Amino acid sequence: MSLQAPSYTQSGQRRALAKPICGEHLPSMHQKRLPKHIGFIPDGNRRWAEARELPKEAGYHHGIKPGLALYEACEKLGIEEVSVYGFTQDNTHRPSVQARQFRAACVAFAQEIAHRGAALAVIGDAESPQFPPELAHLTRRQGSGIKVNFLVNYGWQWDLNGLRESGTLRSSEVSRIDLIVRWGGGRRLSGFPPVQSVYADMYVVDDYWPDYRDEHLREALEWWSRQDRTFGG
Amino acid sequence: MSLQAPSYTQSGQRRALAKPICGEHLPSMHQKRLPKHIGFIPDGNRRWAEARELPKEAGYHHGIKPGLALYEACEKLGIEEVSVYGFTQDNTHRPSVQARQFRAACVAFAQEIAHRGAALAVIGDAESPQFPPELAHLTRRQGSGIKVNFLVNYGWQWDLNGLRESGTLRSSEVSRIDLIVRWGGGRRLSGFPPVQSVYADMYVVDDYWPDYRDEHLREALEWWSRQDRTFGG
Repeated sequence: MSLQAPSYTQSGQRRALAKPICGEHLPSMHQKRLPKHIGFIPDGNRRWAEARELPKEAGYHHGIKPGLALYEACEKLGIEEVSVYGFTQDNTHRPSVQARQFRAACVAFAQEIAHRGAALAVIGDAESPQFPPELAHLTRRQGSGIKVNFLVNYGWQWDLNGLRESGTLRSSEVSRIDLIVRWGGGRRLSGFPPVQSVYADMYVVDDYWPDYRDEHLREALEWWSRQDRTFGG
Repeated sequence: MSLQAPSYTQSGQRRALAKPICGEHLPSMHQKRLPKHIGFIPDGNRRWAEARELPKEAGYHHGIKPGLALYEACEKLGIEEVSVYGFTQDNTHRPSVQARQFRAACVAFAQEIAHRGAALAVIGDAESPQFPPELAHLTRRQGSGIKVNFLVNYGWQWDLNGLRESGTLRSSEVSRIDLIVRWGGGRRLSGFPPVQSVYADMYVVDDYWPDYRDEHLREALEWWSRQDRTFGG
């Protein structure tokens, strides 16, 4: 399994899992092995900063570059859809100096991947003052690249209240998630879209998010390819 | 931390976490450290049977005794509430010889803990032919012991449809889960009540469920006591 650009063996066959064009369908053998939809929980920014004797809030800025590296890795692999935790409504209870920083990091990340052509939708409560106004125009999906659901001011209660009010999840355009990768050692979903996560396999990386390496993703995918997928049947 | 019967130190103080009477409140120091509500996913019955060259369905019967041991262990520790996976609506798609066996095992387990005085409610779609009629009278909570939510013919969609239809989860009497312990090595929720699991820490035991030992629970609790519980804040 490789996160490198596609290459060909000497016999001219495409190497397994290397895939050049986003959106192209993988051969069925590979479809069985690669998750279609991966969720990412990039946790540990504050602990990363503390370990470097930086103020906690300094960690968020250092999460942007790894986010772009992960985005590129998924694109190269031909992952069809990714959901990424930006911040949650619960996170907004943190000290305001932190909230300012994680909001700014989310704005920078979203603008950059929109610029790169991702089929991006920012998903979260856009009517709240906690929602960054710079992202308001990105709540409608645009772009034709890899489908990215960026969860910004997302709340599981906000999401499920859609079922109450209109019979539909507010995140209804987010499909079922096959694999969730979480950095920072936590072994919980922390409110990650609960309905789409019901059958997701969870892979935990102990490293803090700003220390992301493509290896983490590769190891998660290798692990996932060995899990049985019976969906209870 | 101990799963043994309560004992006293030489100075006459009760040993931490040993607790004699179910329902009694733990001293607040211990309350901080013990989860109030634990979810259990007893997976691996079929693989356990296969490893012994038994027919797959033979595994379920061997899950009853461990279930009673776990129940006793939780009672001794003073855990307030437990939720236990019996079977799900998705599981009913399995071969009928298996479905018969897991239904029978669930009936035996539920009747036994009801007999022992658990505050038991069987939670699941009781209107479906897949629901064991022997458990119909147990869908209303009774008993005054440890609160047990036994998920039988439970379905996450069935549960969430309550939100659509009446504005309330069908599992609304199940409280938020602090810790989920899963046997059999799987690292997913497999439709375990999604709303109550949003902030649950997940502890995975690689052993198959019929090989349950009190040690598993003790290790899960020790691990859990070291996790931070910020709920996103």
